[in-house]
Amino acid sequence: MTDLLIRNLRPMGAAPTDMLIRGGRIDAVSSGIDAPGVPVEDAKGAIAIPGLVEAHTHLDKTLMGMGWYENAVGTDLRAMIDNERAERRRLNHDPFRQSMRHALALAGNGITHIRSHVDVDTENDLAAIEGVIQTREALRDIVEIEIVAFPQSGLMIRPGTAELLDQALALGADLIGGLDPCNIDHDPKGHLDTIFGLAEKHGKGIDIHLHEGGTLGAFSTELILERTRALGMKGKVAISHAFCLGMEDWNRVEALLAALADQDVAILTTGAPSSAVPAVKRVLGAGLRMGAGCDGVLDTWNPWNRPDMLDRARIVAQKNNMRSDADLAVALAVCSTGGAAVMDVVGHGVETGCNADLALITGLTLAEAIAAGGPVALTVKGGRITGRNGKPVMEAP
Amino acid sequence: MTDLLIRNLRPMGAAPTDMLIRGGRIDAVSSGIDAPGVPVEDAKGAIAIPGLVEAHTHLDKTLMGMGWYENAVGTDLRAMIDNERAERRRLNHDPFRQSMRHALALAGNGITHIRSHVDVDTENDLAAIEGVIQTREALRDIVEIEIVAFPQSGLMIRPGTAELLDQALALGADLIGGLDPCNIDHDPKGHLDTIFGLAEKHGKGIDIHLHEGGTLGAFSTELILERTRALGMKGKVAISHAFCLGMEDWNRVEALLAALADQDVAILTTGAPSSAVPAVKRVLGAGLRMGAGCDGVLDTWNPWNRPDMLDRARIVAQKNNMRSDADLAVALAVCSTGGAAVMDVVGHGVETGCNADLALITGLTLAEAIAAGGPVALTVKGGRITGRNGKPVMEAP
Repeated sequence: MTDLLIRNLRPMGAAPTDMLIRGGRIDAVSSGIDAPGVPVEDAKGAIAIPGLVEAHTHLDKTLMGMGWYENAVGTDLRAMIDNERAERRRLNHDPFRQSMRHALALAGNGITHIRSHVDVDTENDLAAIEGVIQTREALRDIVEIEIVAFPQSGLMIRPGTAELLDQALALGADLIGGLDPCNIDHDPKGHLDTIFGLAEKHGKGIDIHLHEGGTLGAFSTELILERTRALGMKGKVAISHAFCLGMEDWNRVEALLAALADQDVAILTTGAPSSAVPAVKRVLGAGLRMGAGCDGVLDTWNPWNRPDMLDRARIVAQKNNMRSDADLAVALAVCSTGGAAVMDVVGHGVETGCNADLALITGLTLAEAIAAGGPVALTVKGGRITGRNGKPVMEAP
Repeated sequence: MTDLLIRNLRPMGAAPTDMLIRGGRIDAVSSGIDAPGVPVEDAKGAIAIPGLVEAHTHLDKTLMGMGWYENAVGTDLRAMIDNERAERRRLNHDPFRQSMRHALALAGNGITHIRSHVDVDTENDLAAIEGVIQTREALRDIVEIEIVAFPQSGLMIRPGTAELLDQALALGADLIGGLDPCNIDHDPKGHLDTIFGLAEKHGKGIDIHLHEGGTLGAFSTELILERTRALGMKGKVAISHAFCLGMEDWNRVEALLAALADQDVAILTTGAPSSAVPAVKRVLGAGLRMGAGCDGVLDTWNPWNRPDMLDRARIVAQKNNMRSDADLAVALAVCSTGGAAVMDVVGHGVETGCNADLALITGLTLAEAIAAGGPVALTVKGGRITGRNGKPVMEAP
């Protein structure tokens, strides 16, 4: 079913109207549409926004449905990485089942597109990639999933990883990832040369985790820019977290933003409350594409994150001290059209001709919907209803 | 009714047991208690913690139930203050009705104690104080409310305010408040001398809003300490926000913490995501009492805050990068026994002999309860059930 008539919705919070969807696209938006034979849904005055986009997460990490994970790891990045690799085995973690649970939880709550980093390492090989590819296939009509082959445990320090990343891309990963070229591998040139080389070989994009703050992160960013220019990869590279763009040195950040805009490098944020982060309005003002994500959910890393982009819009707004209704609309846009722009989704909107990928959220205004915090009333993907009241229509394994 | 038998609860997450409450106090905690004639409640394995304490809020500000407030004010502190004073009149804000709504929303969700700052200014005079005192009386058996007479619009810059604060304390406000002695009044000596003078006159405590960051906030803190010592007010002073304790200068912060500990000055935090804030484990490690609060909820100030101390525990944990189960238990303690210590509540616990002021929360561990985010299954105040599933038992006006 990809035809649907939704009555009494408010596009972006405007006056109530009807929306006719035909063949998975928005065919008409006006009052009193008549479409015999087309299934009808009453939106009850909910606000229609373009589908929410979870643009930075880890579908292969969640322990959803496996009981509460008592975290005794602490906050050291390497310790967290080593702990997770060991726990995957101890807990007999099934990446297909777990990524299905996570992706469906997202689909049930307004999300129509997901970019997921997926671990590749020399202990677990390609098991996680294969599991998430299986989920991507199983959910093809429910939610679009982009897979980033991600060397979570390091690249140069773990020989054999580059070959596995190569295989992951051949298997169908959509992008290649990277991780703190200085802090993890202690070899930024080797790390970035390998990643950009694989991207070039496979003709795929890049999305690099960069937690490195201050001048170290700025250095890594400059190495990323250098390679982006050299390989003509303008518009094909994204940096996740990019904490260094939250550093105090105004001039340095301005220069980085200008260089990133010149190469159309996109930024993904989680609005991490405990870190300096890129300021949303500053990044957007510099002309960069910017999306947001909840990061890993219910995994060995942290106990806070939820598979919920309205919750994330609130966190991003809080972190950026965005208080007015106008500012909250910007935070929400980052969580929807912003992420879509990073994922190169075309036609992500609520106007005639756009894809019928929608989230119907409850509130008088967009800001009230964020303040109230969901659940999302209805998720629509390609005209198909995929979520109701925050729950997926399809049952998770 | 202040006798109650709660079966199948888990004190602080321990093994299931029963709890007998008699005369508003915990009379016994053990398995298989028999108490003929005493009403029985089944906790269904919920975790019992001491009642949550909302130790920094503004009951007189909320617009709950008055429709969505479209915020177009921006983030300048003075502009927000002036806007609110004007909006109170335009919206015909009723401080009794609104503080009842806010306090009951809290009582329904596990909160047994509230410290509320309440505005006193030369436009609205004592209307807010009178309204919240009325609420304090109306809810005497539901939730304990401490009132701080708060010069939100400034003190030295608005002649007549000191006299109103004097009257507010005579009327029954429990403490006197203050606000950014440098940034608002531009007269830190005048501001603090007035506040400490009124505290001395009425024999009441002090709780000062201090948003001033860095060296400016450190200067104001030193002036506060100077007067605390001079007037022998050790243990009677609290600083809310205390953003300056989040500054980078490690040595300066250490010296401030030692001086604050010496005078037993308490710290209240909201875990503000967009500011430098006092680090929870550092403040506790220095021996200070520390509580937390949600600040104003659904008011003219911000759209994010909820009347929900489990939500606040999550925000405090995220801001402090507290990830382990042990750390989350600390964040939750700040939101419960920590606030109780700041409010000088005696007997706030889940052991025999303590007040029967409890929140029953759902989860395997304390951390899971924070991660899941409520609602609080049952609120008990003095043995009386005041909230169920996040909703107050008593109806709000």
